[in-house]
Amino acid sequence: MSFYPPSLVNLIKQLSKLPGIGEKTAERLALHILRGSVKDAQALAESISEAKETVRLCSVCYGLADSDPCHICRDATRDQDVVCVVEQGTDMVALEKSGAFKGRYHVLQGCLSPMNGVGPDNLRIRELVERLKKEKIKEVVVATGTSVEGESTANYLRQVLEGSGVKITRIASGVPIGGDLKYTDALTLKRALDSRHCL
Amino acid sequence: MSFYPPSLVNLIKQLSKLPGIGEKTAERLALHILRGSVKDAQALAESISEAKETVRLCSVCYGLADSDPCHICRDATRDQDVVCVVEQGTDMVALEKSGAFKGRYHVLQGCLSPMNGVGPDNLRIRELVERLKKEKIKEVVVATGTSVEGESTANYLRQVLEGSGVKITRIASGVPIGGDLKYTDALTLKRALDSRHCL
Repeated sequence: MSFYPPSLVNLIKQLSKLPGIGEKTAERLALHILRGSVKDAQALAESISEAKETVRLCSVCYGLADSDPCHICRDATRDQDVVCVVEQGTDMVALEKSGAFKGRYHVLQGCLSPMNGVGPDNLRIRELVERLKKEKIKEVVVATGTSVEGESTANYLRQVLEGSGVKITRIASGVPIGGDLKYTDALTLKRALDSRHCL
Repeated sequence: MSFYPPSLVNLIKQLSKLPGIGEKTAERLALHILRGSVKDAQALAESISEAKETVRLCSVCYGLADSDPCHICRDATRDQDVVCVVEQGTDMVALEKSGAFKGRYHVLQGCLSPMNGVGPDNLRIRELVERLKKEKIKEVVVATGTSVEGESTANYLRQVLEGSGVKITRIASGVPIGGDLKYTDALTLKRALDSRHCL
């Protein structure tokens, strides 16, 4: 590395800090940036600074936002009665892309994971309880993941929110649409059978 | 994508322009940058701007440099009689890492490739001829690649430099050190046999 000019060595070092980018890939990316136009390099550098400066967590739902409250929390046309609880801002984006949910969100910023030292106090659970007291919410849809941690978080939320008078629901799990039964794992099949419903 | 804040969408767009970085990877990188500290993001943005601003081509050897002439061309302790011709600045770095060459370099900025519209005028060949006239160079080591294009470039250089009174040599090709003969391709084996020498 030290055979490159110092500023190029520094760029390679900075790029290789990104996840999944090793030193060789960082070198390739850095040389690509140097080969490109000044305008492109400047656009990349500015987009990093700008995103870091403007993207904040919404103080209502804790999702990624560039305004506070975010455009979803501000949107009066959305169903104000239903709040969907997700682990990460990216989960919120996935649900938005599906177009299947018209209520508002609450992003926990993670899920319970004692192995990684993440307890209830590290998540935005207290803030959710406060929201339920302040806002007129009728239903909380728990859309945490279906991993062990996601399920534990869902169960914990049920315990915490019980008695608040709010309906607590959980997204369904089962065979994915377009999924082939012979390729579906045993746990998912068991869940799909347990949750069977009348046709 | 449009479900993210605009500045985050822009960052993802900019990152996905990099080679080998698709939209999904760009999203992951962007979210990593947002999760990190302001200092880290700033360091990355600045390293891009700085590298782009300071890294230039050396006006003598056309290698990557942050000063002109570059530190190799300026280095009086290096062998001034020998110039090694390579395709890219990265090849120069590879040779420097090997520590096997103590002369100076000349970077062609590519190799002859009629298929891609790269002819002699697109390479720094004229500049090499000028160097040979001005500087007291006794030997030119042609270290272009051993691909068809690299070999053609080497042959073209031999034709152009013939009669200049300078010794023209080509790096050896053969079985790589540590290479197993049974895994070595036929062309390489043929070359290794053709170039055999007395023990």
